[in-house]
Amino acid sequence: MKLTQQQIDNFNREGWLFLPELFNAEEVALLAREAINIYDANRPEVWREKSGAPRTAFAAHLYNEAFRLLGAHPRMIEPIEQVFGEKVYMHQFKINAKAAFTGDVWQWHQDYGTWKRDDGMPEPRAMNIAIFLDEVMPINGPLLLIPKSHKRGVLSAGHDTLTTSYPLWTLDKETVTRLAAEGGIVAPTGMPGSVLMFHGNLVHASPPNITPYPRKIVYLTLCACSNHITKFTREEWIAHQDFTPIKPVPDDALMRLARSARTAA
Amino acid sequence: MKLTQQQIDNFNREGWLFLPELFNAEEVALLAREAINIYDANRPEVWREKSGAPRTAFAAHLYNEAFRLLGAHPRMIEPIEQVFGEKVYMHQFKINAKAAFTGDVWQWHQDYGTWKRDDGMPEPRAMNIAIFLDEVMPINGPLLLIPKSHKRGVLSAGHDTLTTSYPLWTLDKETVTRLAAEGGIVAPTGMPGSVLMFHGNLVHASPPNITPYPRKIVYLTLCACSNHITKFTREEWIAHQDFTPIKPVPDDALMRLARSARTAA
Repeated sequence: MKLTQQQIDNFNREGWLFLPELFNAEEVALLAREAINIYDANRPEVWREKSGAPRTAFAAHLYNEAFRLLGAHPRMIEPIEQVFGEKVYMHQFKINAKAAFTGDVWQWHQDYGTWKRDDGMPEPRAMNIAIFLDEVMPINGPLLLIPKSHKRGVLSAGHDTLTTSYPLWTLDKETVTRLAAEGGIVAPTGMPGSVLMFHGNLVHASPPNITPYPRKIVYLTLCACSNHITKFTREEWIAHQDFTPIKPVPDDALMRLARSARTAA
Repeated sequence: MKLTQQQIDNFNREGWLFLPELFNAEEVALLAREAINIYDANRPEVWREKSGAPRTAFAAHLYNEAFRLLGAHPRMIEPIEQVFGEKVYMHQFKINAKAAFTGDVWQWHQDYGTWKRDDGMPEPRAMNIAIFLDEVMPINGPLLLIPKSHKRGVLSAGHDTLTTSYPLWTLDKETVTRLAAEGGIVAPTGMPGSVLMFHGNLVHASPPNITPYPRKIVYLTLCACSNHITKFTREEWIAHQDFTPIKPVPDDALMRLARSARTAA
C-alpha cells in the first residue's frame, strides 16, 4: 500500500493523517479479542492504572501471533518506508487500553521528547501509528492532537512521574495554550480498524474515559533504521534494541489468521 | 417565552431539551466576566478543585446583579412554569467552572438523588437548566447525558466523598452500562448562550477538561413551589430555604445591564 502525494503533503503540513477502516471487521475482532487476553494475563509488560485496570501492554508483537502480523503489516510498513525513504524497525509496540470508566489521562506531550531524552534517538524520524481496536468517539477518551505543532522541534518539558502510573515528559499549560491558539485541537474519531499516523513531535494528549465504552488502541512506533536509538535506559521490551529492518508479511496474513482462529473456535 | 408542544413532548420522551443560543453575545459576555470575578473573590460559596482551581460558585444570584437577573429571566422561568404548571422557586444556583487543564470529573449521578436524600425534596419536580458561558465542545468536558434514563426513578447510589472536592451520590458502573446500552449517551455542545434543560432524574456526568479551553456553565435548579424541600442538612446557600415564587424580570433586563456596564467601563 502506498500513500498518495496529497496524503503525504497533508501529513507534512498538519503532522497527522487519518486512514478510516484500513483493517476490516474480521481482522479487528481478532486483535480486540487477543488484546483482552493479553490484559488478563499478568505479564510484566502489562502496566496498570492506579485503579488496577490495564493501562498499556508492551511488546505483544514479540509473543502473540496476531500482533506479530500487525507489527509487520504492509498497510503500515510500506507507507512509513515511503515517508522515510528507507527501511524501518520497531522502536515501541503497545496496546493502550483506556478502559471503560477508569482509563486515565495522558497529559500533553511529544513522543519524540521521550525517545530523544530517554533513548538517545538522533532525529524525529520515527512514526506513531495508532490502530483503533474499538470505536473511538469524542466521549471515550480520544487522542487530542495539536495540528502543525510538529514543526516546533522538541519543546521543553517536565518529567511527570506522579499524575499517572506512566512516567512522561509533559508540556506546561502556557506552551499548550500557545500552540492550540495557532493550530487548534483535533480529535480524530472513527470505527474500529481505522488508523491514525502522527509525527513524533506532534503535541498530543488524551483525556480520561468515564464512559462504559472501552477505547483500545494499538500504537506502533516505526523508526527509520538509520535513526536507531543510542541510549539503553529503558527495558528492552519498552524501547527495542533490535534494529533489524521489518520484512512485511503478505497483506492477507492477518485476515487468514482471523479466519483460521474462527474456524478453530 | 413558551415551549412548543413538540419541545415538551421531546423533553418528556428524552429527558432533556437543548435551546441553542438563547442568550446573545452581549448578555453572555457580561455573565462570563462576572463569573471570573466571582471565582477570583475568596468567598465561602466558591468551592475549589484539589488543585485550587475553582470548581463551583454557589448562590451568586443573591449577591451579583447580573446573575440575579439571570436567575429570574423569563426565557427560563416561563418555560419551567409551563412544564410544572405552577410557580417555581430557586432550589440551587451554581456556576461550574470546569477550568482549562484542571477542571475535574463529575461522576455519573442523578441530581434528584441528592435533592431527595439530602434535602427531602418530595418529588422530582425540579428542573436543571444549564446556561453555557463558554463554547461547550466535545473535548472540553461537556455534559454527558443518558437519554430516557429519567424514567427509571431514583436509582440506588453510593456517597462518593473522595474522588473530587464535592460530595456526590454516584451510580455504579453496572447501572450506567445498562442504561447507556438502552439510551446511548449524548453530549450536547454549542456556542455560549445556549441552554440545556434536563430532568432531575436524568443520569449524567462530565469528564475532566484537559484542554486550554475553559467551560463555564451556570446551573439553575428551579423547583415547583409546592414541591419545596423539607430537610435542611446543607448550607442555606447550597439548598435554598426561601420558597418565594420567582417573579420574572423583563426580557431585556440582562441586555440593558450588559449595555450599561459596557458604557460605564
